[in-house]
Amino acid sequence: MQEHEFHNDESRVEYLQQLIDEGTFRKASRLLAALAPGEVAHLLESVPPPQRQVIWKLIRDDVGGDVLMELTDEVRADLLNRMDSAEVLAVSESLDTDDLVDLIQQLPHTITREIIESLDGQHRARLEAALSYPEDTAGGLMNPDVVTVRPEVTVDVVVRYLRRIREQLSPRTDILVVVNRQGKYLGVLALADLVIAESDDTVAEVMTLDFPPLPASIDEREVASRFEQHDLVSAPVVNDEGFLLGMITIDDVVDVIREEGEHQFMGRAGLSEEEDMFAPILISARRRAFWLGINLITAFLASWVIGLFEATIQQVVALAVLMPIVASMGGIAGTQTLTLTIRGIALNQLNDKNARWLLNKELAVGALNGVVWAIVVGIVAGIWFKSLDISLLIGAAITINLLFAAVTGALLPRLLDRVGIDPALAGGVLLTTVTDVVGFMAFLGLATLFML
Amino acid sequence: MQEHEFHNDESRVEYLQQLIDEGTFRKASRLLAALAPGEVAHLLESVPPPQRQVIWKLIRDDVGGDVLMELTDEVRADLLNRMDSAEVLAVSESLDTDDLVDLIQQLPHTITREIIESLDGQHRARLEAALSYPEDTAGGLMNPDVVTVRPEVTVDVVVRYLRRIREQLSPRTDILVVVNRQGKYLGVLALADLVIAESDDTVAEVMTLDFPPLPASIDEREVASRFEQHDLVSAPVVNDEGFLLGMITIDDVVDVIREEGEHQFMGRAGLSEEEDMFAPILISARRRAFWLGINLITAFLASWVIGLFEATIQQVVALAVLMPIVASMGGIAGTQTLTLTIRGIALNQLNDKNARWLLNKELAVGALNGVVWAIVVGIVAGIWFKSLDISLLIGAAITINLLFAAVTGALLPRLLDRVGIDPALAGGVLLTTVTDVVGFMAFLGLATLFML
Repeated sequence: MQEHEFHNDESRVEYLQQLIDEGTFRKASRLLAALAPGEVAHLLESVPPPQRQVIWKLIRDDVGGDVLMELTDEVRADLLNRMDSAEVLAVSESLDTDDLVDLIQQLPHTITREIIESLDGQHRARLEAALSYPEDTAGGLMNPDVVTVRPEVTVDVVVRYLRRIREQLSPRTDILVVVNRQGKYLGVLALADLVIAESDDTVAEVMTLDFPPLPASIDEREVASRFEQHDLVSAPVVNDEGFLLGMITIDDVVDVIREEGEHQFMGRAGLSEEEDMFAPILISARRRAFWLGINLITAFLASWVIGLFEATIQQVVALAVLMPIVASMGGIAGTQTLTLTIRGIALNQLNDKNARWLLNKELAVGALNGVVWAIVVGIVAGIWFKSLDISLLIGAAITINLLFAAVTGALLPRLLDRVGIDPALAGGVLLTTVTDVVGFMAFLGLATLFML
Repeated sequence: MQEHEFHNDESRVEYLQQLIDEGTFRKASRLLAALAPGEVAHLLESVPPPQRQVIWKLIRDDVGGDVLMELTDEVRADLLNRMDSAEVLAVSESLDTDDLVDLIQQLPHTITREIIESLDGQHRARLEAALSYPEDTAGGLMNPDVVTVRPEVTVDVVVRYLRRIREQLSPRTDILVVVNRQGKYLGVLALADLVIAESDDTVAEVMTLDFPPLPASIDEREVASRFEQHDLVSAPVVNDEGFLLGMITIDDVVDVIREEGEHQFMGRAGLSEEEDMFAPILISARRRAFWLGINLITAFLASWVIGLFEATIQQVVALAVLMPIVASMGGIAGTQTLTLTIRGIALNQLNDKNARWLLNKELAVGALNGVVWAIVVGIVAGIWFKSLDISLLIGAAITINLLFAAVTGALLPRLLDRVGIDPALAGGVLLTTVTDVVGFMAFLGLATLFML
């Protein structure tokens, strides 16, 4: 029988939706069984909640756990909430220890205890060790189940050992970890070196010594940059005393990088990178309302500034017509500087010394563009309202606002970062508050001084 | 001798900057030699251009090529521009074929010819094959140099072959590719399986058959999602006839994912993900000016709408004070919907069916928040200006604008995507144009109808 061919994810999702709408669950179930857990997770995220429940019921128990782990937090939490503890336990049984760690952090306390108690002693100890590190550190990312070998054994012995535990060996394994009898980290044995070694070589002879392990306490962003800068596929994690705790693999790092990118992108709109596109209306509305509320405060602040100059506006209505241009130019220019600075911080490329250089450069760029656009806007506005005064005023206001925008964009993110506020979240709102207030103040203030 | 210890990248950059400022180049050079190419690249991107040149001169020729390849396009282009062709040739000699492909696409034609002519026949053929695919496809990402084995040979023979070519074998290798005599792709041989195989097994007996290769023509975003959904470390690339062309490794995919995230984040501010934080002032100013110009057009459009109601504003100045609130609330709410939709498109999770669901959901969220904030703003504005008319008017205008914002945010990105415009770049500007125009039009228009 010929299977349906899919050119891309989109047609697959549509086909599955169609099958479910038609009620042909058997076909849908066969389609699902042929997919990797990551693909099923992608499908689940691509359909609205009612269909999501139907598809979830069609997934076999033995892959359910892996599918859950590939979902974003929010969709996973939603599915978990609708499961009873027996179902959660069933799903958790098939999971690796590192996935179990992630899952447990999302579960109610009672189920967590049940899961931990169902584990044998060794697994439980590892799980509890991993749970002791925050989620966003190397310790929180690592998988405590690692294949280790001793330096004094021969290649022959290693190979026989690997044959015995072949079930535990992932087909993507690139290195084994070498530890001493006490569990202290010594180095790694690359499979590529193991394959070409002679069978009576010892591990010590073929292992790699200069493979620095990751301390369990470092931040996940630091983990990602080490993987990127050294092109790693997997890396051992150790505690402060140098004892092996676990291993981080590139698939977990890819998730970190993906989430970091989405966090910056979605944070700017006050959204979480975990946000489910099909979240229930009330939940979505409440979350968005919070962000709208914060922005409303800044909008009222801007209005209050305008209100200070009511008398001026009444006399020269052209000011009301033109004032959004001044605010908007400042906001756009400032956002560019802000974005560049936030990326610099995220990539760990800004320090006190080059931040000063960046500030000077951005000020120069702001001054240059300030003058250029002041002339352009000044000419257009002057012709529009047939007034040299307005032409000069709006030009001056735009130049002032672009300079403030450059300074704010360059300094604000580092300031926020230093006091522990995420610049990707708060930077945009604060910056436009500054450019709105400065823009209106400069334009209407100068007008009050010179035109009345 | 004790080496300087670094807690993080930042202190390393500062220490290096200090060494260079002090002119202690020998120490700086030793520090650089101890770093991985990715780390050196990170350092180069973290310092302003003058120091960048100094550091670049301190880098040894044999790692220069690898460092270049780890840099963002813009910084790389700047360094290449300052090198003569002899230097470029020297640097290119140490590169893998896939890196050479990327490099060549950035070089002037004359140097390109020299490089290609310096290669031997086999290398040249591979290079030219790889150059025939666009940069952002699987063919453009792949490395044409692949270690291949035949299905009929024994494990013993494979191991002896690998010993002979051990130089070409990366320590991160996880799979070898199995091809027939004609070069047609058959499957992969995981090193993990090779290690535990008996020496007289044939490759055919231990290889993995169900490892679908990547077609050379698929988009790099599709490549990334396959790697993510199947947790791949490397994957073979084939042409339409199923012949092996090369191999993609996870480090290239990580770059794609990182760039995609930065593209969305920086695109929203009209910046390129390749933008150098320390680009020269004139170049930066010109690029930013373009974006400011586009936004100026939309700002003038909004001003023109306000200008239509000059007479109304003159009679009720409160309208001028409050109108930015209406526009701003619409812009914020619309941006949230827009952001969610753009991510849905980027993750390939939107199709005709669920896009309608998303639109309905966003309309409901918009209506709900529209009513809630209409009441809040209405009450505040009513008290501020002691006017029930203004209270009702601004409430109605906010509700109308939030509904338009939801529709625009949900539909615009798919529309742009369909006509080939990048929604991450153009979406934000267009959306705020709509919310500004609708906001001013609704507020001032209703005021003209009902208050005069």
